[in-house]
Amino acid sequence: MRFTSEQRLDDGVLERDFTLGDIPGVLWTPASASEPASAPKSAPVPLILLGHPGGLDRMRPRLAARARHSASEGFASATIELPGSGGRPRLPVVEQARADLRRALEAGEPVPDDVVDRLVLPLVDEGVPEWRAALDALLALPGIDGPVGYSGGVISIGVRLAVVEPRVAAAVLFAGSYVPRVIFEEARQVTVPLHVLLQWDDEGNDRQAALDLFDAFGSKEKALNANMGGHTGVPPHAGEAAARFLARHLRA
Amino acid sequence: MRFTSEQRLDDGVLERDFTLGDIPGVLWTPASASEPASAPKSAPVPLILLGHPGGLDRMRPRLAARARHSASEGFASATIELPGSGGRPRLPVVEQARADLRRALEAGEPVPDDVVDRLVLPLVDEGVPEWRAALDALLALPGIDGPVGYSGGVISIGVRLAVVEPRVAAAVLFAGSYVPRVIFEEARQVTVPLHVLLQWDDEGNDRQAALDLFDAFGSKEKALNANMGGHTGVPPHAGEAAARFLARHLRA
Repeated sequence: MRFTSEQRLDDGVLERDFTLGDIPGVLWTPASASEPASAPKSAPVPLILLGHPGGLDRMRPRLAARARHSASEGFASATIELPGSGGRPRLPVVEQARADLRRALEAGEPVPDDVVDRLVLPLVDEGVPEWRAALDALLALPGIDGPVGYSGGVISIGVRLAVVEPRVAAAVLFAGSYVPRVIFEEARQVTVPLHVLLQWDDEGNDRQAALDLFDAFGSKEKALNANMGGHTGVPPHAGEAAARFLARHLRA
Repeated sequence: MRFTSEQRLDDGVLERDFTLGDIPGVLWTPASASEPASAPKSAPVPLILLGHPGGLDRMRPRLAARARHSASEGFASATIELPGSGGRPRLPVVEQARADLRRALEAGEPVPDDVVDRLVLPLVDEGVPEWRAALDALLALPGIDGPVGYSGGVISIGVRLAVVEPRVAAAVLFAGSYVPRVIFEEARQVTVPLHVLLQWDDEGNDRQAALDLFDAFGSKEKALNANMGGHTGVPPHAGEAAARFLARHLRA
């Protein structure tokens, strides 16, 4: 992991771009966790991994806003680019699946399962090990420690990560993308506390599939928080409720 | 409206039992809103009507806990007994419907629509005018003013009240009781902000019917907050989120 740039934001948050191999990422740490080595040591802060649908440059303003809110509550946040997105090499299988998806939607046909598999599973299969490698590197930094939360989409990445990564202690999952059948089955193995956000009128989302997925999660504590509006219309109060959920579970 | 007893609780909340005609009720006011007339006047506080399934004596501890929480945030709370419940005269139609319901459930049969109608509509038709009369009396008291929130079950009473009573500015509705078809239609006319609580594993509740009802509400701002557990298992954090929703909408 190599830091490539850093800036101190006006609220004292330290924003650092990094690369992990050839994967770009961003780390936001609250002022307390990013003092120079000479300053008195503060307690290490928990870490939130910010999921997103890919395209870090485009997503960055929204992710930064969430990270700064979390920093004000004493959490570090980090994200990495998804496989095949932003400046990373395209994934031909996913590109083909995206074209097939567009064709099905334009024809008003149901989206075949195999298209969903080809669209999402490569992101999960390649992305999850990358998130875990990022976690190794991030938790090795001074001032950052577990527990770790995952917050965002792609929901299938969040599901797989919650199943395979024991350091993830709680997750906020954004319903609203296609979910392969194999991920649906993995959802039954999730046991960490979950807070699932669902945009009730999400144009690109199958509401019933999202409800079925919520039902499938094995977690004893899970909450579904459905709000009005389209895919990007999560109301501020719902974002705050999600932040409160993470704070409740990540504070020792 | 006649106060029949009062006690000052250890957090300064004034708890007063009252009767409105022959309907018993309870009013909780924060210390600030229940000073003697000689004290300097504070600003009047908003009012939350606490709905419940009937049987005020049994429900009282839970209602009092919610009222005291709301008082700490500067709200008065009040409730009245439902028609046919507690010490009030039985409603033969409802008693008969309850017996029919029990018979259907024991036989594992679907509950006929007409049983739901006979079970719930008398409570709505008689109860809603009583809640409105209570509102008239409560808002005439010194120290209490609008806006008014409704919070609780029977959800059908909350729906009708939200439609016919313009002083209700926001409502927390507890899914988990049978909803007559006519109320389902009235739900489309509801326009106030709604926060709907759904216990995902509620034994006595049809989850799909609750989701359909949520979908039907005409409100532009509505949130569904589903949590694990049975009918009475609303987790504390979900209760707090509901209180925050009301505070957001009732504070001028």
